[in-house]
Amino acid sequence: MNNKAMYNLSYGLFVLTARENEKDNGCIVNTVAQVTTSPNRILVAVNKNNYTHGMILRTGEFNVSILTERAAFDTFKHWGFQSGSDVDKAVGITFRRADNQLIYLTEETNAYISAKVISTTDLGTHTLFLADVTDAEVLSDDPSVTYSYYQQHIKPAPAKTAKKGYICTVCGYIYEGDPLPEDFICPICKHPASDFKPL
Amino acid sequence: MNNKAMYNLSYGLFVLTARENEKDNGCIVNTVAQVTTSPNRILVAVNKNNYTHGMILRTGEFNVSILTERAAFDTFKHWGFQSGSDVDKAVGITFRRADNQLIYLTEETNAYISAKVISTTDLGTHTLFLADVTDAEVLSDDPSVTYSYYQQHIKPAPAKTAKKGYICTVCGYIYEGDPLPEDFICPICKHPASDFKPL
Repeated sequence: MNNKAMYNLSYGLFVLTARENEKDNGCIVNTVAQVTTSPNRILVAVNKNNYTHGMILRTGEFNVSILTERAAFDTFKHWGFQSGSDVDKAVGITFRRADNQLIYLTEETNAYISAKVISTTDLGTHTLFLADVTDAEVLSDDPSVTYSYYQQHIKPAPAKTAKKGYICTVCGYIYEGDPLPEDFICPICKHPASDFKPL
Repeated sequence: MNNKAMYNLSYGLFVLTARENEKDNGCIVNTVAQVTTSPNRILVAVNKNNYTHGMILRTGEFNVSILTERAAFDTFKHWGFQSGSDVDKAVGITFRRADNQLIYLTEETNAYISAKVISTTDLGTHTLFLADVTDAEVLSDDPSVTYSYYQQHIKPAPAKTAKKGYICTVCGYIYEGDPLPEDFICPICKHPASDFKPL
């Protein structure tokens, strides 16, 4: 068994937003898929460590902003590398509100989808949300970014360093120290030690 | 609401294979995603009209062969445009058997994944299979094909014709006649009339 085979699955990258008690928040996700066209339904798997996860679980609503190849690394850092429990991610961001009053991103995106959760499945580390699409609009004709494009063209190469440490191959987070604890979980993207490689 | 927004979601393309009573079969799917890494689990949504769907439902096992950008249109025709109820799709194909005895494709692929179903969710037109990954191997380093790449580089442009009709924007099937019935379902890829445009 070679787990690297899993890396060959293709994904898009999305900003998943939610709103609860007038607080807006969002995170980066890669698993959004349309599963049926009649009715129009999508699913998304969300890591329970994401602050957005609990907001969606409680409110039953989310928006998906589809990121394009023009998305800057800073966009991924903003939505993916910090938690809504520490910062207000809506500050300094250009957005609009959809009919459901949740925000969606109008820059570096080509479409947004509003959805209402109809069922949740507990997957252990993640929750799978199945949802009815309640609204959707095209925003530009820029190509959607794929995870593979992000890895090759957007994520910066790690700086050359004499430091001992490990880099998360998923998000680029650097663990300074050696060895990397076997049960280490990336504080940024929540991937396990097996997704790290030595600097 | 603009349903074209749904087209901006990114997908890979895969040959999903199953085996029942010594009969091998497979179909093309686009919704395979890893949803958790510990344990290693994937999901796939399969149209109930696919012969492979029933085989997986009954046997609880499937393989995913990840197609690359080198995949020929004939490969999509072979696995996607005909039914296992009419033909033996394993004939004339280069394949190997994984440990689970199901076939996987060794050409125009970069990896395969073997999986065992742990739960099924009825989505109406489709069934969502959640499955444990039991085996996975890398086969080449060719880039995975995305649905968008297939649309732009693999699917042939429709032949110029004076005929009246409608073309399925998903698979390229041509309906000869006008108007297209509102309840028309593409006989090839099972998408509804809303996914057709006039020739």
